Amino acid sequence: MGVELYFFQPLGTNSGRVYLTLLEKGVRFSEHELSGPRFEHLEPSYLRINPKGQAPTLSHDGAILTEGAPICEYIDEAFTGPPLRPADAHARWCMRWWCRYIECDLGRSLMMIHWNRIIPQFVGARAHADVEQIIDRVPDPDRQRAWRSAYRQQTPAEHLLESSRRLQVASRRIEQTLSSDPWIAGSHYSLADIDLLNFYGFVPTWSPELVNESATPCTMDWLRRMGERAAVRELRARSHSRRPQAQ
Amino acid sequence: MGVELYFFQPLGTNSGRVYLTLLEKGVRFSEHELSGPRFEHLEPSYLRINPKGQAPTLSHDGAILTEGAPICEYIDEAFTGPPLRPADAHARWCMRWWCRYIECDLGRSLMMIHWNRIIPQFVGARAHADVEQIIDRVPDPDRQRAWRSAYRQQTPAEHLLESSRRLQVASRRIEQTLSSDPWIAGSHYSLADIDLLNFYGFVPTWSPELVNESATPCTMDWLRRMGERAAVRELRARSHSRRPQAQ
Repeated sequence: MGVELYFFQPLGTNSGRVYLTLLEKGVRFSEHELSGPRFEHLEPSYLRINPKGQAPTLSHDGAILTEGAPICEYIDEAFTGPPLRPADAHARWCMRWWCRYIECDLGRSLMMIHWNRIIPQFVGARAHADVEQIIDRVPDPDRQRAWRSAYRQQTPAEHLLESSRRLQVASRRIEQTLSSDPWIAGSHYSLADIDLLNFYGFVPTWSPELVNESATPCTMDWLRRMGERAAVRELRARSHSRRPQAQ
Repeated sequence: MGVELYFFQPLGTNSGRVYLTLLEKGVRFSEHELSGPRFEHLEPSYLRINPKGQAPTLSHDGAILTEGAPICEYIDEAFTGPPLRPADAHARWCMRWWCRYIECDLGRSLMMIHWNRIIPQFVGARAHADVEQIIDRVPDPDRQRAWRSAYRQQTPAEHLLESSRRLQVASRRIEQTLSSDPWIAGSHYSLADIDLLNFYGFVPTWSPELVNESATPCTMDWLRRMGERAAVRELRARSHSRRPQAQ
């Protein structure tokens, strides 16, 4: 039995946060890589273990766990290894506040912008009717609607603008926090740093006008310190951004 | 200093979950009731402590805590009293999975349906331009958009239908779970039960065709057992559904 992880490549967002949490704790696990461009997460065999058709899923001695944030807290509680949550109750509230903000506010905004950018590359040379049929299979209606809007490039401009505004607000807030604390939730490296790296770590490359050495030096310093961690090096070595493959 | 809670009446959803958690733990606290119909949560004095203009906010020895779910875990960690989270890691994952589902999936659907029903009563005799100006002051754009759609009765019919569908799915899932376990996250009364009561407890009154003795007997039995708890009786005694007052 042991620990098995179902995840997407390249390692980031929800797959990356759980993968990195396992590495930080030193948990041995076997890998089940799902191909996003082949829509393997929508295959019946995967929907049986994760009815929402989302990655990651963790299997531990036969028990199936879904939803990134609860899985990460589970890993920290269920396995030995360095604690990834501060011991103090207030610091832990702060960590959970950040995890929530990073995923639900910042992450959701980034995802909207990102999907609209990557979808032409993602669907490749598929025929229009085929893509619509694949989107029909997304079990969660919110996600189905978001993918369809992105595919048809019909996401309302005001929603995209709002996402950009949130990204700017978040970038300022992150910089301000890291100018007084070494880690995003205070003095303790935590699950919130793991989330921030996986949801936000690509922004300096992607929006260099927003996150760079002169505008956000503390964020850049935090990114360097993250990059020096053994578990993060390992994550990056195992992450590969492949070209999307046609079916 | 001590513990102070800023909350909305009547006690339910986010205000109710935090209020009930404090009662279950036996924490003494002072009350700051915010009038929703007077939009006191949008006053500058409140926005200074809660920039999103949402309730509840907890103040503990001067530290300000926001966001219902992280506050509830904080209360369980920071105060003595009966534990409201199971000790076992897997059961705790299960509790967090339910808390997330109850708030983000079920709760969001219920809120959309509910807002569209209550808004005429809520805005009372105010002039149209006044209401639009009040809605302009809602800091969170998603929430502002949702309130405006509800006020103008422009929430797309497909979104309302989707919310109803989710409510039905959730009701079946809750009934199925409570047919095998005494509490929603297993054998231990937990924060997930507190959330379920506050987000979903009004559904038998509100949608009796969906939740009733014959269709969902285990849910009705759970509601009776909840109602017998000393803390829930106290919560109900302190909750009062007032008629919305004009400005």
